[in-house]
Amino acid sequence: MQVEVLPNAGSPLLPYLEDKLVIVIDVLRATSTMVTALANGCQSIIPVLSPEDAMERRLTLPGSLLGGERNALPIEGFDLGNSPFDYVPEKVGGKRVIITTTNGTRAIRDASAAPKIWMASFLNMHSIVRAVLRQFENSDKLQGVVVFCAGTEERFDLPDTLCAGMLIDGLGAKATLNDLGEAARILYRSSESNLVDKISDSVHGKRLISLGFERDVVYCSTPNILPVIPVFEEGEVVWLTED
Amino acid sequence: MQVEVLPNAGSPLLPYLEDKLVIVIDVLRATSTMVTALANGCQSIIPVLSPEDAMERRLTLPGSLLGGERNALPIEGFDLGNSPFDYVPEKVGGKRVIITTTNGTRAIRDASAAPKIWMASFLNMHSIVRAVLRQFENSDKLQGVVVFCAGTEERFDLPDTLCAGMLIDGLGAKATLNDLGEAARILYRSSESNLVDKISDSVHGKRLISLGFERDVVYCSTPNILPVIPVFEEGEVVWLTED
Repeated sequence: MQVEVLPNAGSPLLPYLEDKLVIVIDVLRATSTMVTALANGCQSIIPVLSPEDAMERRLTLPGSLLGGERNALPIEGFDLGNSPFDYVPEKVGGKRVIITTTNGTRAIRDASAAPKIWMASFLNMHSIVRAVLRQFENSDKLQGVVVFCAGTEERFDLPDTLCAGMLIDGLGAKATLNDLGEAARILYRSSESNLVDKISDSVHGKRLISLGFERDVVYCSTPNILPVIPVFEEGEVVWLTED
Repeated sequence: MQVEVLPNAGSPLLPYLEDKLVIVIDVLRATSTMVTALANGCQSIIPVLSPEDAMERRLTLPGSLLGGERNALPIEGFDLGNSPFDYVPEKVGGKRVIITTTNGTRAIRDASAAPKIWMASFLNMHSIVRAVLRQFENSDKLQGVVVFCAGTEERFDLPDTLCAGMLIDGLGAKATLNDLGEAARILYRSSESNLVDKISDSVHGKRLISLGFERDVVYCSTPNILPVIPVFEEGEVVWLTED
């Protein structure tokens, strides 16, 4: 199985996404928040690129909520920020959420040529690894996996890369890797026992902590607690129904 | 000291290069070859972006040589390829070489807004580390270091990142790092005892070995054998004369 890791949204994308399973990772915090929202009964998440797009989209979806961030902070007039702790069952249960974030929603849109797009985070990694392995046992149509780290403002992001490394570690020796995939595996293995510290010390982690979101950073660094596989289909992120 | 690592030529560059010392790294093979050429008595190296630029430039520099590669192979009609073993004293002693390579010469040109641009490789790392430390003892004008990995065709390259990690490791605990800098340090420390294997197993390393350049890969993975600091000044790479 060919596994290629891309460092950030805005990475040059080759046309071969057309036969790849793409796994989008934005640990701090978009994909962690989407996983949490679905686990808490959210009906679907609609990623859009800008706050203006979000408000326009809501006009066609009565009863939906608006969520997201700019510069890590909630957007004025929106119902929810980008903290997973905003997405509690009482707020998002049974609802659609239209969401816009700086890096994560952009990566999902960048990947839209792919036939399958899933969202990973530390929270749901065990389920993602099992689903990827099952996918490649059953299908000869997919030609590999592209792990698409959202990054931070078009830069390499250590939390996303560590999460990609955990995925690669879980896939085992069968995976053929690009250089960033090999780097991610080494980084994860050397940081496995102190993930929270490494993520807290990253540029994005420190910024969130300085804004009062330390609880988010610790939560988003916790592996394997939610059995959700969010899949992007027809413009919405929903809980994957296994065949 | 602020140390920021950039992953590849074509990375988004902030205007702040204007007060930075930029260190360009292209382990396989441009900066390794430049270091070797200068150590072997080459007068200067003139990096240009295309083979056409190189041929045009030679018209104004009688007696100069043409060097470089496309797709890792020598360019038709050129005097030298991109292998450090082409740059022997009998060929390059006392000569100027006009050179064009896919990633390395592009990174040097990308960095041209910086007041100081040096070239690093494993071969000259000890001298580079000492010179950087001395530079920041003596100068309050420079606001930090940007380690500019050339990468491979606008992608992350493990050999360049390991070399950046060796530089950061040498600078010690004083350096404040971006996420890729921290990753480079972890990667170097975990690979320090088997650099040749890691570099040989990288995508670029495997490609060079398949083309018959295994000797180049092993040589370029050898730390601290040449006491050269190549500096890019007024369009030419020359041996830095220490103040």
